[in-house]
Amino acid sequence: AVHGARKMEDYGRFLALLVSALLVGFVSVVFSLVWVFHYREGLSWDGSPREFNWHPVLIITGFVFIQGIAIIVYRLPWTWKCSKLLMKFIHAGLNTIAMILAIVSMVAVFEYHNARNIPNMYSLHSWIGLTAVIFYSLQLFLGFAVFLLPFAPVPLRAALMPIHVYSGLTIFATVIATALMGITEKLIFSLKNPAYSASPPEATFVNCLGLLLVIFGALILWMASRSHWKRPPEENAKVLRPIGGTPEGTEAESTMTDGSNADKSDLRINSEAARKQNLKLDEAGQRSTM
Amino acid sequence: AVHGARKMEDYGRFLALLVSALLVGFVSVVFSLVWVFHYREGLSWDGSPREFNWHPVLIITGFVFIQGIAIIVYRLPWTWKCSKLLMKFIHAGLNTIAMILAIVSMVAVFEYHNARNIPNMYSLHSWIGLTAVIFYSLQLFLGFAVFLLPFAPVPLRAALMPIHVYSGLTIFATVIATALMGITEKLIFSLKNPAYSASPPEATFVNCLGLLLVIFGALILWMASRSHWKRPPEENAKVLRPIGGTPEGTEAESTMTDGSNADKSDLRINSEAARKQNLKLDEAGQRSTM
Repeated sequence: AVHGARKMEDYGRFLALLVSALLVGFVSVVFSLVWVFHYREGLSWDGSPREFNWHPVLIITGFVFIQGIAIIVYRLPWTWKCSKLLMKFIHAGLNTIAMILAIVSMVAVFEYHNARNIPNMYSLHSWIGLTAVIFYSLQLFLGFAVFLLPFAPVPLRAALMPIHVYSGLTIFATVIATALMGITEKLIFSLKNPAYSASPPEATFVNCLGLLLVIFGALILWMASRSHWKRPPEENAKVLRPIGGTPEGTEAESTMTDGSNADKSDLRINSEAARKQNLKLDEAGQRSTM
Repeated sequence: AVHGARKMEDYGRFLALLVSALLVGFVSVVFSLVWVFHYREGLSWDGSPREFNWHPVLIITGFVFIQGIAIIVYRLPWTWKCSKLLMKFIHAGLNTIAMILAIVSMVAVFEYHNARNIPNMYSLHSWIGLTAVIFYSLQLFLGFAVFLLPFAPVPLRAALMPIHVYSGLTIFATVIATALMGITEKLIFSLKNPAYSASPPEATFVNCLGLLLVIFGALILWMASRSHWKRPPEENAKVLRPIGGTPEGTEAESTMTDGSNADKSDLRINSEAARKQNLKLDEAGQRSTM
């Protein structure tokens, strides 16, 4: 009963964080819309500043909010009865939407720049932003090929999972950092008389948007890196685990770190493969004592 | 022998990453010096732009490079024969140096702004940067009170360790994001004729500095989040562990995630406390199956 109560408390804590993250993410999207409609020229696709304005709106909606949700989608307890494959499709689908929105938002900037003879790709924001989009596409492609298609062998999945998780979280953090640079640039360039340094209402409002993005990122990273909030292994994988296996050992896995065993729910209907996998997990769980 | 070879390979991989991080961090500091001495006015403490120039140099040296080293100092295998207490002093000492340098670098900006009647604290860079310094000071104070002073009980240490680790890594990432905003601001403000958008050599050079900071951050976060590179538990803690304890379970801990057991080397010379701690660890290692 005490254990059950602690689980409920833990579930409540997860829900509170999830609601906070959804709220902060949603408010960020609303803030980006208020920014472009109330303080700026609104939205259109005609080479004018209204075309540029798609950039912050689509980045915050897709590359920050939707990417953040995609990262924690395996953590939602009510999805644990859905198949792992379905959840992988949702994870990949959300990331694909985020990538498309990010690419459209970049096209908006290039077209705006070209219409106004503003050089492209000169700023640190553009360098790091383009790098993030390239790595994100690579991550999506590799994730699809290795974890979604049924061809990659289990040891390859196990070896790549910690890299997949680390890359995902690092790209996500880099995207938020890039958004903060973009906000900084845009406020400096667009606020003249009164300037950014005079703190007009738009400056204060958009600074708050920047703070919201940092809070959103911090919430997602916390939720993604708590191992006890991970999706439990599939029932059939549990049944397949040989008698000598150590469920406790694999349960103690963590996303951010020794996630080499993270894809264990893919264990084949083959107890030999499962045994090998468990051996690998046991080894991976051991600390190097160099 | 195979196991030993794998350990050596793993050790070689750690060393390669460490050397890369040190190199990238060191080159970043050199780049910041080249920026202020070759492209800008140099350094002095007289309210001129030369005083401002201390800001990027001290932030990159202290708040990025030294903080990054402080984060991974427990990971250095040749320190594992030193006492945990000594390593805590080094960790706390490096972070204290980083905080002092960060505060001095902020004073440089405030004095420069005041001498020129430039408003303070109007930009997103300043908002997030000040927030990061405040959280960093809090983290340092709490870390000192809980983990270094001998008063905090083991369960409190165990409960706060994952928060300490998460906060540390999140603050570090936020500091790098803030540095990227600062670089963006400074290049826009100081490059006139040719402007930032004309990509003069200084712009390209300092953009590269920004990329180096991102690479440095990514390397530190990778090294900090690999559980198999963690400092092993103290020998005496191992000896003290009661017979019913599960060394495998505690070995599978991870810094970024279920680090609730991370401070286990502080186990008192008291087997009752050790037993309680192990019970707690076993529970913490269990996945919530909600």
